Amino acid sequence: MKQISFEQVRIEGGFWAAKQQMLLRTASGIYDRFLETYRFDAMNIRGWLERLSSGMASDPERPRVGHIFWDSDIAKWIEGTAYLIQIAKDWQLTSEQREELSRLEEICDQTIDTICENADENGYFNSHFQVTEALGEARRFTDRSQHELYCAGHLIEAAIAYRRATGKSKLYDLMCRYADYIDRIFHQEDAACFVTPGHPELELALVKLAAESGNRSYLELAKFFIDKHGDNPKDVTPYPVFNDLYNQDELPLRKRSTAEGHCVRAMYLLSGMIDVAKAFGDESLMAACRRMYNNAVNERMYVTGGIGSTHIGEAFSINYHLPNRTAYTETCAAIALAQASGRMIGAVPSSEDTAVSMALFADTVERTIYNGILSGISLDGKGFFYENPLEIDLKFNHPNASTHNKDYYPETQRREVFSCSCCPPNVLRFYASLGDYLYSADGDTLYIHQYMENSLQTADGLSVNIRTDYPLSGKVHVEIKKAPGCSIRRAAFRLPAWCEKWNVSFDASPESGYFYVTLPEDSGTDKRVFTADLEFAMEPRFVEGDPRIHDTLGKVAAARGPVIYAMEGVDQPEMDIFAFRADPDQRPVEGDILETPGGSMLLPSLKIQGTLCAPQTGPGLYHTRTGEGSRPADAVLIPYYAFASRGESDLRVWIPVL
Amino acid sequence: MKQISFEQVRIEGGFWAAKQQMLLRTASGIYDRFLETYRFDAMNIRGWLERLSSGMASDPERPRVGHIFWDSDIAKWIEGTAYLIQIAKDWQLTSEQREELSRLEEICDQTIDTICENADENGYFNSHFQVTEALGEARRFTDRSQHELYCAGHLIEAAIAYRRATGKSKLYDLMCRYADYIDRIFHQEDAACFVTPGHPELELALVKLAAESGNRSYLELAKFFIDKHGDNPKDVTPYPVFNDLYNQDELPLRKRSTAEGHCVRAMYLLSGMIDVAKAFGDESLMAACRRMYNNAVNERMYVTGGIGSTHIGEAFSINYHLPNRTAYTETCAAIALAQASGRMIGAVPSSEDTAVSMALFADTVERTIYNGILSGISLDGKGFFYENPLEIDLKFNHPNASTHNKDYYPETQRREVFSCSCCPPNVLRFYASLGDYLYSADGDTLYIHQYMENSLQTADGLSVNIRTDYPLSGKVHVEIKKAPGCSIRRAAFRLPAWCEKWNVSFDASPESGYFYVTLPEDSGTDKRVFTADLEFAMEPRFVEGDPRIHDTLGKVAAARGPVIYAMEGVDQPEMDIFAFRADPDQRPVEGDILETPGGSMLLPSLKIQGTLCAPQTGPGLYHTRTGEGSRPADAVLIPYYAFASRGESDLRVWIPVL
Repeated sequence: MKQISFEQVRIEGGFWAAKQQMLLRTASGIYDRFLETYRFDAMNIRGWLERLSSGMASDPERPRVGHIFWDSDIAKWIEGTAYLIQIAKDWQLTSEQREELSRLEEICDQTIDTICENADENGYFNSHFQVTEALGEARRFTDRSQHELYCAGHLIEAAIAYRRATGKSKLYDLMCRYADYIDRIFHQEDAACFVTPGHPELELALVKLAAESGNRSYLELAKFFIDKHGDNPKDVTPYPVFNDLYNQDELPLRKRSTAEGHCVRAMYLLSGMIDVAKAFGDESLMAACRRMYNNAVNERMYVTGGIGSTHIGEAFSINYHLPNRTAYTETCAAIALAQASGRMIGAVPSSEDTAVSMALFADTVERTIYNGILSGISLDGKGFFYENPLEIDLKFNHPNASTHNKDYYPETQRREVFSCSCCPPNVLRFYASLGDYLYSADGDTLYIHQYMENSLQTADGLSVNIRTDYPLSGKVHVEIKKAPGCSIRRAAFRLPAWCEKWNVSFDASPESGYFYVTLPEDSGTDKRVFTADLEFAMEPRFVEGDPRIHDTLGKVAAARGPVIYAMEGVDQPEMDIFAFRADPDQRPVEGDILETPGGSMLLPSLKIQGTLCAPQTGPGLYHTRTGEGSRPADAVLIPYYAFASRGESDLRVWIPVL
Repeated sequence: MKQISFEQVRIEGGFWAAKQQMLLRTASGIYDRFLETYRFDAMNIRGWLERLSSGMASDPERPRVGHIFWDSDIAKWIEGTAYLIQIAKDWQLTSEQREELSRLEEICDQTIDTICENADENGYFNSHFQVTEALGEARRFTDRSQHELYCAGHLIEAAIAYRRATGKSKLYDLMCRYADYIDRIFHQEDAACFVTPGHPELELALVKLAAESGNRSYLELAKFFIDKHGDNPKDVTPYPVFNDLYNQDELPLRKRSTAEGHCVRAMYLLSGMIDVAKAFGDESLMAACRRMYNNAVNERMYVTGGIGSTHIGEAFSINYHLPNRTAYTETCAAIALAQASGRMIGAVPSSEDTAVSMALFADTVERTIYNGILSGISLDGKGFFYENPLEIDLKFNHPNASTHNKDYYPETQRREVFSCSCCPPNVLRFYASLGDYLYSADGDTLYIHQYMENSLQTADGLSVNIRTDYPLSGKVHVEIKKAPGCSIRRAAFRLPAWCEKWNVSFDASPESGYFYVTLPEDSGTDKRVFTADLEFAMEPRFVEGDPRIHDTLGKVAAARGPVIYAMEGVDQPEMDIFAFRADPDQRPVEGDILETPGGSMLLPSLKIQGTLCAPQTGPGLYHTRTGEGSRPADAVLIPYYAFASRGESDLRVWIPVL
């Protein structure tokens, strides 16, 4: 199975073209916020040191030393901007947009120049450690907890992306040298104070670099790290929260059966594991990947595709423990799950037997991109959530609800930048390269995993054209043309797991989540066009959770197609939404597509019926139940991804039923 | 209004006689645990210092210095044992019990001897500070956070109790000197590094000491502390959790309108405030007491009478924030609320206008003694809860559910001792002096607040005899005799707020929660006996919470009389109790009185009807709702106070309704 890159895919209309075009604003906004928070300044290591030595270091706003993972913030921004440059080649841009994109490319060039000027001869670049080293403090490769190799990994991904989008290899060349240096210190000489990256990321970046460069030593280095995880006394971290689970070190990876610890680390590592397992045909490693993946998705995932049940260690907790109000569900974790899901598709062996899993991987991609990742970015592309809770009770959760003695709750409004601002550029790079998740090819079969208005053009003469406003409707029109000699003989169309009713124009029944259709043989210009129409019924529905999830018992979530809905206080101003109980026997019905100050929600709202319970009040808090005081009530629901778009509001995804 | 002391009351049968007789075992058990944890050893300060200087300090189990509030643990144990000695005078004891009680009194005597031998000339005794002073470390009266005056307060209460029970004044004499010394240092000379006790307790103890000694200077000292709270720059504590709310210093007390911070501190302080307000006729202080009390009870109290919504700072949080699973609801906090409620009754002015509040105070006493305090002690009297949660989900809350990355949840089993073991001796002293809460007298009116099988004999010739098995049934038979010259002319019988139906043998309607009945005038030996029969219907019922409490919305709790019930997993082994939903239109019905290895629950179980929801399982966690898979089910409920008596179990007080 071969993943098909977003570079071959043009997303041309509908829901996702609107979102991708918004990303230009996103890239500019992140740049502004990173500039004013000294992140770009920090790349200029010599300048930073000069400022310190010349006594200009007294600005109380500016830290003395750049933060340990600022390099990764900049790298992810360059990577995302590179993808944007790549996909915008096909866009009709206004002259203003074209100028802005040029300006962003110039900023990338300048930043890369700065990085290259400040890197060591051997390729080493780390704006935190080079400053602390010069100050006689912390030295490179001595402290695994400081994200040093994590930053290196993101810089490598950025270098590859920028080279492919612009043809400019300056950062790429540096990063090859840096990777060689890491190979020498960690792999050949075992000369560092630790063995594996505390925060995985470098593993998957090295596999990418091996593919880009053709240099197999990077692949060997990735395998080295994968082999060493959880199996080296140098890497012991016996802290209560920042423990071996947090650092993905509780077990050698091939012995793993669960997804544990810090979710982003776990899923970045899983991506690297899948890449290495695939490259080396390592069956025992691949089996561990499947176990980890299945545990994450089938036992520890929220209905939004979010993962991370607790803020303590930003971590998975235990199976079926999925609290709504304190859900951590970091945007980056959902992104990392989507990335791992995409790689799982690519790692499926050439056999239909495993298509059950493939459908699960593709369903998980769809679940995350419409829900748990998309909620991480505002409708105007400028604000971000780090955490994506499934419930907000402003009365109690609000940061100002009590200034003292508060339990931990997620924030209730998106912000443009965070002190730990990993999520914003991650959203940028993820959605700019969303085309990665649409197709894969396995021998003679083209798999169509996600339905978006797009066209695909492969090197061997396959061309696919999809017209759809999915998920506004479920209608999808597909045209497939093949040049003579094209190896593709079959198309496999995914039947989304959420879909209860469908209609297809061809004669095929779904097998393990896909319709397999043989394409007509070449027989002249006109007949080479294969067309198909698919319709997936978008009737709104209620979803319920596995009964082992106690936080969803006796509750339903509304959904429409792949999109999970949520109830916000702002839409029912006369109601305490926590007093509402849904009638689960009345299906939700579609309402208007709501507009917000930040933009359109793009998909219809839903209306549900139920009851508002209003027990007796005062005197005293508790009374014998009378059963009186309840009344019928309706509620309006919005796509979950659009929550908090109209100011702070109470929020519920899971609604108790009558 | 005058409270009537437990010393005049004999609890002679029924529910509470059984509980009080159990306390002998409790006192012995606490002694054993305190002995083996070095608490008694610590009182021997010279011995402790000798051990240190002779190099015997290497026992790794034993701390180098006694804990800052071990003195209060010992003091509360002596106080509780004194009350037990007092009430046991009326009991038929076995020779074994008599010997055990003598042994406990001897231990008290020896411990008091040790304390007196180790105290300073000026009366100062603190086993922590005297050791640290001798070691050249922390000195007395320099650190308000170290519970120094809190320990002094408990020692004073113990001294008074022991003197009254045994006539032995050794500790009492020492404590008078100690109080004089505190008066000099804090009040007259302002020579300490702080002004008010960080943990209130001394205030109320000084009022007691003034009453016992007739020395008004102790009352003035109590008033001095009350006046200074929240109003002195020496007392600033700008820590995030151990802040000014925690130390009851956010405002001068007369400006308070809410009950804030550490619940035990808040309620101990409130007791001191009530005492001082009453003693000085201080109306503005009394108004603040009423505001604090009403906030605590009418906006921040659990249905069990527990208070403390968060473990962070062991504190109140905000109005109507009453989470069940993470409820802190410390046993000591419920005790402190009962103590403050009893004092509020005693502070009611001689006017019926305020009887609404008086009924609330008495109802709150009843709510706490049958629920949130009683759950703090096991049925065999040996185990204790520090926290008393209203919900336990073993799958997720269990201490071993995940060894990593766990949110904070209360413990799931009672323990015999804690490192911070304030609750066990507090339960002992509270229930041993439970007779304090039964009666009060206001001019010519005797108030009967709580119904227990008991007799009262006052100095001026009033004798009351109550026969009842309340709350097993609601039938109460009362006989009142008065000697000539007795000032009582009326009896006021409380109508519990929970009671929906009643029957009384006299001709009176309830006024603000009490039936007022004029007693017959003296007219010869036989006619002096007034008899009354009351019956409060004990039909089980469902209770619901004020809709502003989001954690009780759409849920009911079962209750019978004053007793709140709970559902435990152990009684429905085939069922996930979190999947059960109650039919609120079917009243609960009575079942058997359950026995446990630790003893009888003493009150019947309840049976309720409902539905068990069983949504679809696998593949995947989330599915379109089918509405199938639910089935009718019954559940057995037990008195909340008996939860966790048969091993660890899932627990729910608030049960979702159909």
